Amino acid sequence: MLPRGRPRALGAAALLLLLLLIGFFQFGGDVECERGERGGERRGPGSFPGPLTPRVSTDGRPRGAAALDGEPSADRGGHNRSDCVPPRPPLPKCELLHVAIVCAGPNSSRDLVTLVKSVLFYRKNPLHFHLVTDTMARNILEMLFHTWMVPAVRVSFYDAEELKPQVSWIPNKHYSGLYGLMKLVLPATLPPDLARVIVLDTDVTFASDIAELWALFAHFSDKQVIGLVENQSDWYLGNLWRNHRPWPALGRGFNTGVILLRLDRLRQAGWEQMWKLTATRELLTLPATSLADQDIFNAVIKEHPRLVQPLPCVWNVQLSDHTLAERCYSEASDLKVIHWNSPKKLRVKNKHVDHFRNLYLTFLEYDGNLLRRELFGCPSPPPPGAEQVQRALAQLDEEDACFEFRQQQLTVHRVHVTFLPHEPPPPQPHDVTLVAQLSMDRLQMLEALCRHWPGPMSLALYLTDAEAQQFLRFVEASAVLSARQNVAYHVVYREGPLYPVNQLRNVALAQALTPYVFLSDIDFLPAYSLYDYLRASIEQLKLGSERKAALVVPAFETLRYRFSFPSSKAELLALLDSGSLYTFRYHEWPQGHAPTDYARWREAQTPYRVQWAADYEPYVVVPRDCPRYDPRFVGFGWNKVAHIVELDAQEYELLVLPEAFAIHLPHAPSLDISRFRSSPTYRDCLQALKDEFHQDLSRHYGAAALKYLTALQQPRGPA
Amino acid sequence: MLPRGRPRALGAAALLLLLLLIGFFQFGGDVECERGERGGERRGPGSFPGPLTPRVSTDGRPRGAAALDGEPSADRGGHNRSDCVPPRPPLPKCELLHVAIVCAGPNSSRDLVTLVKSVLFYRKNPLHFHLVTDTMARNILEMLFHTWMVPAVRVSFYDAEELKPQVSWIPNKHYSGLYGLMKLVLPATLPPDLARVIVLDTDVTFASDIAELWALFAHFSDKQVIGLVENQSDWYLGNLWRNHRPWPALGRGFNTGVILLRLDRLRQAGWEQMWKLTATRELLTLPATSLADQDIFNAVIKEHPRLVQPLPCVWNVQLSDHTLAERCYSEASDLKVIHWNSPKKLRVKNKHVDHFRNLYLTFLEYDGNLLRRELFGCPSPPPPGAEQVQRALAQLDEEDACFEFRQQQLTVHRVHVTFLPHEPPPPQPHDVTLVAQLSMDRLQMLEALCRHWPGPMSLALYLTDAEAQQFLRFVEASAVLSARQNVAYHVVYREGPLYPVNQLRNVALAQALTPYVFLSDIDFLPAYSLYDYLRASIEQLKLGSERKAALVVPAFETLRYRFSFPSSKAELLALLDSGSLYTFRYHEWPQGHAPTDYARWREAQTPYRVQWAADYEPYVVVPRDCPRYDPRFVGFGWNKVAHIVELDAQEYELLVLPEAFAIHLPHAPSLDISRFRSSPTYRDCLQALKDEFHQDLSRHYGAAALKYLTALQQPRGPA
Repeated sequence: MLPRGRPRALGAAALLLLLLLIGFFQFGGDVECERGERGGERRGPGSFPGPLTPRVSTDGRPRGAAALDGEPSADRGGHNRSDCVPPRPPLPKCELLHVAIVCAGPNSSRDLVTLVKSVLFYRKNPLHFHLVTDTMARNILEMLFHTWMVPAVRVSFYDAEELKPQVSWIPNKHYSGLYGLMKLVLPATLPPDLARVIVLDTDVTFASDIAELWALFAHFSDKQVIGLVENQSDWYLGNLWRNHRPWPALGRGFNTGVILLRLDRLRQAGWEQMWKLTATRELLTLPATSLADQDIFNAVIKEHPRLVQPLPCVWNVQLSDHTLAERCYSEASDLKVIHWNSPKKLRVKNKHVDHFRNLYLTFLEYDGNLLRRELFGCPSPPPPGAEQVQRALAQLDEEDACFEFRQQQLTVHRVHVTFLPHEPPPPQPHDVTLVAQLSMDRLQMLEALCRHWPGPMSLALYLTDAEAQQFLRFVEASAVLSARQNVAYHVVYREGPLYPVNQLRNVALAQALTPYVFLSDIDFLPAYSLYDYLRASIEQLKLGSERKAALVVPAFETLRYRFSFPSSKAELLALLDSGSLYTFRYHEWPQGHAPTDYARWREAQTPYRVQWAADYEPYVVVPRDCPRYDPRFVGFGWNKVAHIVELDAQEYELLVLPEAFAIHLPHAPSLDISRFRSSPTYRDCLQALKDEFHQDLSRHYGAAALKYLTALQQPRGPA
Repeated sequence: MLPRGRPRALGAAALLLLLLLIGFFQFGGDVECERGERGGERRGPGSFPGPLTPRVSTDGRPRGAAALDGEPSADRGGHNRSDCVPPRPPLPKCELLHVAIVCAGPNSSRDLVTLVKSVLFYRKNPLHFHLVTDTMARNILEMLFHTWMVPAVRVSFYDAEELKPQVSWIPNKHYSGLYGLMKLVLPATLPPDLARVIVLDTDVTFASDIAELWALFAHFSDKQVIGLVENQSDWYLGNLWRNHRPWPALGRGFNTGVILLRLDRLRQAGWEQMWKLTATRELLTLPATSLADQDIFNAVIKEHPRLVQPLPCVWNVQLSDHTLAERCYSEASDLKVIHWNSPKKLRVKNKHVDHFRNLYLTFLEYDGNLLRRELFGCPSPPPPGAEQVQRALAQLDEEDACFEFRQQQLTVHRVHVTFLPHEPPPPQPHDVTLVAQLSMDRLQMLEALCRHWPGPMSLALYLTDAEAQQFLRFVEASAVLSARQNVAYHVVYREGPLYPVNQLRNVALAQALTPYVFLSDIDFLPAYSLYDYLRASIEQLKLGSERKAALVVPAFETLRYRFSFPSSKAELLALLDSGSLYTFRYHEWPQGHAPTDYARWREAQTPYRVQWAADYEPYVVVPRDCPRYDPRFVGFGWNKVAHIVELDAQEYELLVLPEAFAIHLPHAPSLDISRFRSSPTYRDCLQALKDEFHQDLSRHYGAAALKYLTALQQPRGPA
């Protein structure tokens, strides 16, 4: 009980104490301060928040430490209370996060994949990617995401071609061209009911959970519509060189590599009109943008500073030769997003670049298959196609000796077509694409193949993510390969113990763009004249339009490690006669090619017909819409035979070309082949697969299939 | 101004309000609750905290949902206030964290590396690893960490052999043997000034920053000395089968895969005596431990329940066929540590195991070189050796055309010796180890080599982390290779563009354990009789002890892809004469082996001496303490020649063995060779390296080196 007396004073004191306590617990106390966070207030130009190098003063020299001391730095381990933000309520569990990226061409597509891998690695939320793409990037990324089947990831595509008219009136000196302007039209392009989106450049790598970035939307005041990190160079300050006139910006301006957009507010605020007016006005005095849409964003923000919520620098650490980013990461130990915005990219010289490079390399080489994991506690519908695959896999009997074979057949491999830039060949009526598949151990064949075949090629490569990078470097380092624009490389990512040879061939076949294809193998070098000869033969024989046929290219082999390639049929015959050359697999399995009738080929001057026989597996030229290879044949054995059976069952004539030939070079057995042949079950399983194939033949072709079944039952030599 | 009247009531109301407000801001308000955290109170048995499957009731059936509802679950998204912990003050920046691991043998050593990689990936603090190891693990890990040179990581080793007497009196049925009991003696073994340590099993993978685990020490009450996660199986409940008698435990007991130890308090509490008394007492009625030290920990805790601070289940998600862990991760989306404690390990069948397997595979295949990054904001002394390397690298001229060569020479490759279990050969006075190096593309040679050479081998493999796993699977799948205990494989991790051939040879050479070595190349198959013949020759010639010599094994080659290996010198001569065999590189570079004098070898019946000549690079047998290969020769070219020059300069006689031979099999050029040969600078740089080598020769051998310089100047054919 309080003592009597001085009640007024007591009451006042109590009230005061109350107020003090309220004040204390509101702004101080045991609040969890998070490093790198910043209060939501806008600061005027010249006193930009952020621990960056001091402003350049008018005499061109940095202002010195004094200016730094004057700037609050919340990044010093969160010890500065005045910058402390009370902890935000966590995001609702399983909130769907939206990410938009503009991506054109195969190189950006590869970069996008690395970015997506880094996002997926850390994320715990379902994601919806909105991709503004040209045709090529769309083809690549649609196939990639479809085969990747990552749970809780949805992808929508927006046609960049359709958006071009909206920005094509803006001259842009930046190498990104029109695509570099497209972020401006996102509010108009993305679904009208989409309120928020994170926009990313493709040269960005995440080192953290993207949900933390999304959570920064909560810091927006009512007026703020766009969240950006300060630009970490002196570009927008101007005067980098004589006559350097950057677009207007607030202080150092902002970098648009990482953007938080309140699309709803932008639309309401009349964004489209806003940026168009600003751009039009600036283009009266400036000839073009230099940094694409970043210039226009900065000009708009200069005019309407209240629109922007500055984001902590750790969300867009810009790596270039300039060291302005250093202040950001020398204080913070928690880098969230790295942005490789220097044209030198990984060759940037900067003390800490190893750290960043390692992060980037981590995701570059990271096995994307490992990102197919479910999100716990956030059930989402399975990706399209995933359910059927799961069901089919679940039906397999694990005790089945051939379980691995069946599992491999059902495996949907992640596929990245057109891994490197590729010029589709101009349409020509009789053009032929060489189709083959390979893995790392055959990369050396590529240069030789390029020297022998000048025409288009469609090659499927069975690689891990890390090998794909090695492959990239290999091509870049090769003058021969870099020079070729008409060789398309499609990466099929390794998965499972058995080599999915026919799946690989089917990918390469499906990606061929000419009316005809030459179905070859990577170890064969075609005659120098073959490309021209095939096109002439196709025309002459009216292949496809008037004649349903498969043109046989006779196969030979040398056993010699060093070998002088014959430049004509006559030379080849001489080598054959002298024992330097043999018909293919002459010693071990002659029936694979004997039906080509080499004795007749020797003398032949015109194409001649041959009959199908058991185990015949010639290399043929067919129209592109031929039957696919049967994917049940994994590993090695019968994978080409089955295809020829199918062609024959569909009544393709087998016509041998008298001047065509291809020669197989010797090579050590690949690891895949060795593994396969050492598997004890392989023979039995191959037999089981053959039997099933023949059952399917009966079903499809009825009595006509008898011929193949009979042939199957004939006793033959070892496979 | 407050109105007059009712002062007492006003004061009381104010006070009450004050108290309420204090209470509110203390325990509620805007506190950041972290999922998966739990208050620090001990709960009695039977009402264990944690979202696990309900206790088994006395009739053996799970109790049902009722028991679950009765348990507070802080894991439901942190919405349950009563379990909410006020946020802890963050760890002091750069606090050094200590981790202890017991590790014996090569298999555990590999597991430890994967664990360490996962820890390093997420960590932001300096770390000190305390490793209790047997001799083999120590050799492996000491070399590994030394070459890994990870900043802000320190490693201390403790000899498990010395600790054995302290635990050898305890019968242990678990496969871990005595090593499985050693966690008990950690308080006595680790430095007396070390207060806290995290103890981990090697089959654990981190999915989070270990600092978060360390921070849980702050939850310990004054009495608590050990933090553990509940055991997620029914083992300790007993009655898994008839006569199943587990050691005593509190409810389900605790799993010792992840432990927080307050070493200071344990020592003070007389830990040693405590566990010894308990163990002694239990062993009166139980024959042995079944789960090694985990049993004893649990028995002690049963007796002294106050000692334990239960940790949230996410810190030790135990994966086995039992689904008890499922409740843990189906509620939490934030798994921190995965523990593969089932003998089936990755083959465990459990709905979410793909998620976990992918995490594990991530680190298994993760390029460890990428973890060499600095910690920002936590300066620490560079790892031993790192400074010199950095300095030497900094001195290189990047404009130098041969920059890559010099850089590669300075590169310290991460080395993991004895990657697979290996039995050192019993000491024999004339024993020879075959020494060679290879990369992935030559794995198929291993089986053939094993068939030709029954003796010990020391092989260095130049691999990425991912390739090392493929290699592991390759050996496991090969009956031939798995059967051999005397072939030691040492992994040198790839780094840099050029092949460090001589560094690889030096690693293999240094790891050879016999008095003599046969310095070979991976593409050569030795004569079937060579191993025995070499040992007899060594003895006969008294190599080493009385005779300083290098015994030459004449080299041949076949160009044929298929080849029948001669079983005697006579057969070989016949093949030579018939043109199926040639002396090695007969066509391209005969001077490499011509000084062996094959004409003389043909007829020779006793060893004969030959003279050194320019470019001579025979395969020789020498005492193990021979000169090392010169690591400046990277890529290809002159790397063996230089070694023979060194041997000759040191006056090793060159003695050709009349019955010895090895035959080179053809193979496609490796990617490394192709890359090398396509490099425009390689010839010039090779010349520069040769010149420097000769300068060194002059310095070391004075006038005697003239012979080599003169030979170097002679014009010769292309290299």
